[in-house]
Amino acid sequence: MIFSMVPDATITLTTDFGNESPYVAAMKGSILAVNPAARILDLSHQIPPQDVRHAAFFLAAAIPYFPPSAIHVVVVDPGVGSERAILYVEVNGRPLLVPDNGCWTCILGADNPTQVICLSDRRYWRETVSNTFHGRDIFAPVAGHLSLGVNPKRLGIPATTWTRLEMPAPEQVGEGWRGEVVFIDHFGNLVTNIPGSAITPPLDLLRVGKARFRRRCRWVRTYAEAKAGALVVLVSSYGLVEVAIVQGDAARKLGARVGTPVEIWDHRRSAT
Amino acid sequence: MIFSMVPDATITLTTDFGNESPYVAAMKGSILAVNPAARILDLSHQIPPQDVRHAAFFLAAAIPYFPPSAIHVVVVDPGVGSERAILYVEVNGRPLLVPDNGCWTCILGADNPTQVICLSDRRYWRETVSNTFHGRDIFAPVAGHLSLGVNPKRLGIPATTWTRLEMPAPEQVGEGWRGEVVFIDHFGNLVTNIPGSAITPPLDLLRVGKARFRRRCRWVRTYAEAKAGALVVLVSSYGLVEVAIVQGDAARKLGARVGTPVEIWDHRRSAT
Amino acid sequence: MIFSMVPDATITLTTDFGNESPYVAAMKGSILAVNPAARILDLSHQIPPQDVRHAAFFLAAAIPYFPPSAIHVVVVDPGVGSERAILYVEVNGRPLLVPDNGCWTCILGADNPTQVICLSDRRYWRETVSNTFHGRDIFAPVAGHLSLGVNPKRLGIPATTWTRLEMPAPEQVGEGWRGEVVFIDHFGNLVTNIPGSAITPPLDLLRVGKARFRRRCRWVRTYAEAKAGALVVLVSSYGLVEVAIVQGDAARKLGARVGTPVEIWDHRRSAT
Repeated sequence: MIFSMVPDATITLTTDFGNESPYVAAMKGSILAVNPAARILDLSHQIPPQDVRHAAFFLAAAIPYFPPSAIHVVVVDPGVGSERAILYVEVNGRPLLVPDNGCWTCILGADNPTQVICLSDRRYWRETVSNTFHGRDIFAPVAGHLSLGVNPKRLGIPATTWTRLEMPAPEQVGEGWRGEVVFIDHFGNLVTNIPGSAITPPLDLLRVGKARFRRRCRWVRTYAEAKAGALVVLVSSYGLVEVAIVQGDAARKLGARVGTPVEIWDHRRSAT
Repeated sequence: MIFSMVPDATITLTTDFGNESPYVAAMKGSILAVNPAARILDLSHQIPPQDVRHAAFFLAAAIPYFPPSAIHVVVVDPGVGSERAILYVEVNGRPLLVPDNGCWTCILGADNPTQVICLSDRRYWRETVSNTFHGRDIFAPVAGHLSLGVNPKRLGIPATTWTRLEMPAPEQVGEGWRGEVVFIDHFGNLVTNIPGSAITPPLDLLRVGKARFRRRCRWVRTYAEAKAGALVVLVSSYGLVEVAIVQGDAARKLGARVGTPVEIWDHRRSAT
Repeated sequence: MIFSMVPDATITLTTDFGNESPYVAAMKGSILAVNPAARILDLSHQIPPQDVRHAAFFLAAAIPYFPPSAIHVVVVDPGVGSERAILYVEVNGRPLLVPDNGCWTCILGADNPTQVICLSDRRYWRETVSNTFHGRDIFAPVAGHLSLGVNPKRLGIPATTWTRLEMPAPEQVGEGWRGEVVFIDHFGNLVTNIPGSAITPPLDLLRVGKARFRRRCRWVRTYAEAKAGALVVLVSSYGLVEVAIVQGDAARKLGARVGTPVEIWDHRRSAT
């Protein structure tokens, strides 16, 4: 083992275990059992249970902002105990430990991962490995060892194939776009998969879900530009088209969920 | 830039983003991108959306217990993207980064802030600043720089005015007091704005909300003094009058919310 | 005071205050006020209010995975302000601060605690101690002092008796077992108190609650062995018999709660 101490390495945790879960607590213990000086940072434990697509969006919205020194552990893993691999991947120098279900592939964009290793060396795992809780028994101790400077190559064997998650693609339809809601935030704002860079305002006719008519909406740069209650469209902080009701809850008002279709059009060029 | 390293400075986060939010995760990344050794501590991400008054109470109940070495970042910010300023403030030696909406002014009490700086120097911000997510693009990197020892004076220009939040004041009415619920805790206990120090027990007639009659209640020092189910009044750990049902949920039982009026009276001196 | 600095000691927090609570934030401040270099790690603040039994299960599922260097603070404390003691206990070298209500005794198993000290030396407390918030005023500063290397013996006087929580015991009934649900996880999986080591599959007849008939179920090693929707029984990662519906919510489907009886039988040997 190489022990080129990385002092105070930060290990982030993203799971679907729930904030109240002893599973999260056990993982934290299991990391510190390997490296008592590791810094543990919760990203979220509220990923909807076994929702790999949600995890994928979440990671794409968070991981790129971290420095390469942080190690990211992701346990959203409906296949735990099956033959699915656990991977060490490195994307733009950022190290992640993930189940091989594609949850990390949204971060890739046009890039390729620098390294993909399939975990197999049990020396870096807990001595006894349960069938149902690899988070505690494999992911956590491996993260602990990585934070101590273990060379990722020692963790297993290079993987040449891995699962890539296909995310729904938006389509240009005439002068407008058709996409779908990919994420709803705590305020009820609807983040779509329509790229903000691709469209030129004003596209000011909006249909969310099965509404019979498109509604006029207003393009804004920030929520504060419109009055409370106004239906607005803006380019979100992730560069995606976002539908919001100022100081209100667009998801509830418009009855939208993840997957709800969203269309946006220029009123001068289209008839409803 | 002054880099008088403050080793392992702690940065606390208080937001209304929700625990499950990738916005919180992105802020953490954005802090560590500036100072990988910063220690990040969650205070709460469950401030009710855009509820500046709730944030004000929360901060008053938490910040005074911290040592001056911790840097507090508060993002409850309905005005994001508007002309509202972002402030660095120093209260009793404790540094905070806040939107200029008054959320921090309850900590002040009779004191004045030692320093108020209006953030303007973009060198301490992310290179690209979105219109809707200043938490990630301004607050977080500025906190990172502060934790590295940057002199706050470099962040912008001194502010001479700022928003002060007016909190509802309780009134003395005859022999009793009339105030309102300012906070409801997880157990359903009702914290009011009536100062515990001002009143001498027994004030044992209580009206919460629009109840037709005042009810007898019991003054206790601790919950454990009365039986399960008893309606009690005590001086809370924040020095405010608190209404509780022992091992029960007073908010649900009495139908109270933040803002619900609370009256308290001495039964020997008043007729209902 | 002995100040044999334990650099960067980790202090974990487990409470029933709720994630959104300023009480949690105040405790964190109160720890850092004593030791600004302490590392604070949330285990859970979502223990159901005043549910000592839940806390006991939670701790048994988490604490054994931590290294001895971590200090565990547990504030699930319906008796706050009464005469109940606050204890420093040491179990297998792991230090905890707990109210004397038995919440920690599930960790003990067949062991005895190495040390039990009843906190009494007010020099390690906050100067003013409220009647209702010992988490902030006693537990937190004492944890801070421990993390600075204070000898636990200085905190108070050795305790010779303490509350031990009696957990419900499963019983062997003929060829089968009768126990109850002791914990329900975020996915709705039912963890029972029936020891996995004691039983030999196939015990494939299951009754949960007051169901009139036992149902056939399938023993699996991992969730992934059965199809979505299948009712399965497995040995959980805690070594206890667990009832699950693959990719579903067993608690909701079977109407189970903590305390719901669970029977498991071999269909070849029993008549329903």
